[in-house]
Amino acid sequence: MKRDPNRLYASYRVETPLALADAAAQLAGEQSSGTFVAVPGESEELKARFAARVEGIIELDIASSPSLPGGRPGDRFQRGEVTVSWSVENFGANLPTIVSTVEGNLYELRGFTGMKLLDLEFPDSLIAAYAGPKHGVEGTRRLTGAQDRPMIGTIIKPSVGLSPTETAALIKPLVAAGIDFIKDDELMANPPHSPFDERVEAVMRVVNEHAGRTGKHVMVAFNVTDDLDAMLRHYDKIVAMGGTCAMVSINSVGLSAVKRLCEHGELSIHGHRNGWGMLNRHPMLGVEFPAYQKFWRLAGIDQLHVNGIANKFWESDDSVVRSIQSCLAPLGSTRGLLPVVSSGQWGGQAFETYRRTQTIDLLYMAGGGVMAHPGGPAAGVAALQQAWSEAVAGKTLAEAAATHAEFRQAVEKFGDAEARRQIAGGHA
Amino acid sequence: MKRDPNRLYASYRVETPLALADAAAQLAGEQSSGTFVAVPGESEELKARFAARVEGIIELDIASSPSLPGGRPGDRFQRGEVTVSWSVENFGANLPTIVSTVEGNLYELRGFTGMKLLDLEFPDSLIAAYAGPKHGVEGTRRLTGAQDRPMIGTIIKPSVGLSPTETAALIKPLVAAGIDFIKDDELMANPPHSPFDERVEAVMRVVNEHAGRTGKHVMVAFNVTDDLDAMLRHYDKIVAMGGTCAMVSINSVGLSAVKRLCEHGELSIHGHRNGWGMLNRHPMLGVEFPAYQKFWRLAGIDQLHVNGIANKFWESDDSVVRSIQSCLAPLGSTRGLLPVVSSGQWGGQAFETYRRTQTIDLLYMAGGGVMAHPGGPAAGVAALQQAWSEAVAGKTLAEAAATHAEFRQAVEKFGDAEARRQIAGGHA
Repeated sequence: MKRDPNRLYASYRVETPLALADAAAQLAGEQSSGTFVAVPGESEELKARFAARVEGIIELDIASSPSLPGGRPGDRFQRGEVTVSWSVENFGANLPTIVSTVEGNLYELRGFTGMKLLDLEFPDSLIAAYAGPKHGVEGTRRLTGAQDRPMIGTIIKPSVGLSPTETAALIKPLVAAGIDFIKDDELMANPPHSPFDERVEAVMRVVNEHAGRTGKHVMVAFNVTDDLDAMLRHYDKIVAMGGTCAMVSINSVGLSAVKRLCEHGELSIHGHRNGWGMLNRHPMLGVEFPAYQKFWRLAGIDQLHVNGIANKFWESDDSVVRSIQSCLAPLGSTRGLLPVVSSGQWGGQAFETYRRTQTIDLLYMAGGGVMAHPGGPAAGVAALQQAWSEAVAGKTLAEAAATHAEFRQAVEKFGDAEARRQIAGGHA
Repeated sequence: MKRDPNRLYASYRVETPLALADAAAQLAGEQSSGTFVAVPGESEELKARFAARVEGIIELDIASSPSLPGGRPGDRFQRGEVTVSWSVENFGANLPTIVSTVEGNLYELRGFTGMKLLDLEFPDSLIAAYAGPKHGVEGTRRLTGAQDRPMIGTIIKPSVGLSPTETAALIKPLVAAGIDFIKDDELMANPPHSPFDERVEAVMRVVNEHAGRTGKHVMVAFNVTDDLDAMLRHYDKIVAMGGTCAMVSINSVGLSAVKRLCEHGELSIHGHRNGWGMLNRHPMLGVEFPAYQKFWRLAGIDQLHVNGIANKFWESDDSVVRSIQSCLAPLGSTRGLLPVVSSGQWGGQAFETYRRTQTIDLLYMAGGGVMAHPGGPAAGVAALQQAWSEAVAGKTLAEAAATHAEFRQAVEKFGDAEARRQIAGGHA
């Protein structure tokens, strides 16, 4: 469809007891000029220039009961996809106000019993106002020194309770094992038992010592999530200690402070999306990842969580694949987001992940998969590297397990019955 | 129930295919020490000190199908209320990390097919780290000069399209009519056709001229929603022009930048909750208002939208009443939030609002109800004041309409069939 270069387009999955066209018109009205009665000053000229426009309507199935409560009464609930556009003149380069425009009060409307923002098309003129990710995939690769394969990462566990010294002691064998990336847990930021500055100092001593000896600089994502001033102070501490990454819980901190953090300087920003399920888990409420990631990409984060194939959470593999693809898809001239694959990952999922996405532009995270490997963390890291190397070479899980002892141990400990059957019974 | 003064308590409505006690344990585990396998370093001592605790479980009804997709399979889905607590030592006074702790990955768990955060109990030691609302109800009253009745407000419409001069021209009769409060629409922040500074200058000329002549300083909530630096600049502009209020779309901007804005100085901060439906409309997903408002109250906003009785949106009156009550309920030593009542309000709802809440500590907003009153905006303001004065005096809608021409006109134009019947046929 031909797009007006001065308009922003948003597509929605909706469900309505009304005629779909009437519901779409209500959506557009609410998010531009709408109030419940006509008011003085609202001329036809103003309407033509500033009103949102319904650009497309696709009818889907009909439900017999409403997905969400509080809608207008009805005995059939038409589902459909609706595309609406706004002139960029309505908001200019104001990201939070764009969020309020394309989401905002829409979810409150009684004319809808389902409302999910699917995707956005930003005009180039608007994208040009944003620097986007400063590092993205390539820059983060450069900072970790990991080329031609997914970056391999792990998470410090337990999530809470370790002192800075204990954290540094846990990090030591991981760094020695050749891992590319280590992150704090999102529940651990700057608590009294592990003050941020002391943790950074203790951990960076290990990282810097290893870098000085081997040239390999492990990226550590320190969780800066906090009030803005504290985040900026923590960011500066990371820089001062030679660190390369800050992690932030983007939903908890919010768009404007995350953007300010990204603009602060030179670190690669690791975006943790905890809280995402609240915005996404219901199929007829909230926002889908392709739209969601664009806000954060324009705000400037470099890395974003996408869950993983066969994860421990509720999300389907199809959804994970689509999220990886949307992080890496073009968005004007901005750099791509590095997809952070995690949740129940141990290496066995490398084969399906590569088969379905055909990309190595990933940060592949395993928590228990590294730390609880029977051979210790070093064997855990080796197993992950083995899995990815064989997956990219087109080998199967069983073939990889046949030639790599560490990966075989990983399958035996973490694999499901099917995976264990494969390595026991050959390649069938 | 006796509360440990060093712990934060959160209550949830949940739905699970598991035994409720097992599901509750999983919830607590995920949000403190959890990973999918036990890892080295996670000693029993650490667990005792830092693990979240299940404090209470109440069984409710059983559903035959899951409310949310992706859960573990089952043929019965037990609903219940679960209370969990954390030591404040886990996070300290770090509001975004507290959000990540009490919400975070919970919504992703396959052990749950429903998850809604109901309420929070912050220990006094934690609340003491936050200034809370700088003005709250009393301070905002002082700034508007409106005592002994709800503050009466309106919204500038159309939402978008007016130039600064046109906006100022619309404001003039409203100010003259004795209104207490006027706000920008959330879709109008700093667009090219109405640059923020020019709008503030044009509008404040009208407000200041009126204040100089009459002593009545109308509060105007200018929508500062934007990147943080722009918000602070806009805030300073409001202060420089003698304004008293800034409005911010809190969900779009996010917690850390809103807190920074609140800390900036002296304005009363008007929190617009657009986007709220996404977090709340499904009964088994998201967060309820009593928990939600506490985050924003600790962050320091002074005013928060609560919808209104018989609103145009999906929300029930019961929910609106509960929201008003929770804004005004004590939270340690913080000031109460001023509930902003809006959405389809025209004065007729004053009777039911007062009957159910017994409070005048409200900002009562009418958009169309003021601007589209048949006698013009001044008559619209008069009608709202009449309605509230009679409601507080214990009169009915029909009694108020019998003695006040402007309110009678409002009933005739905006009232439903029942309201019109009441004023036509007497007080039956």
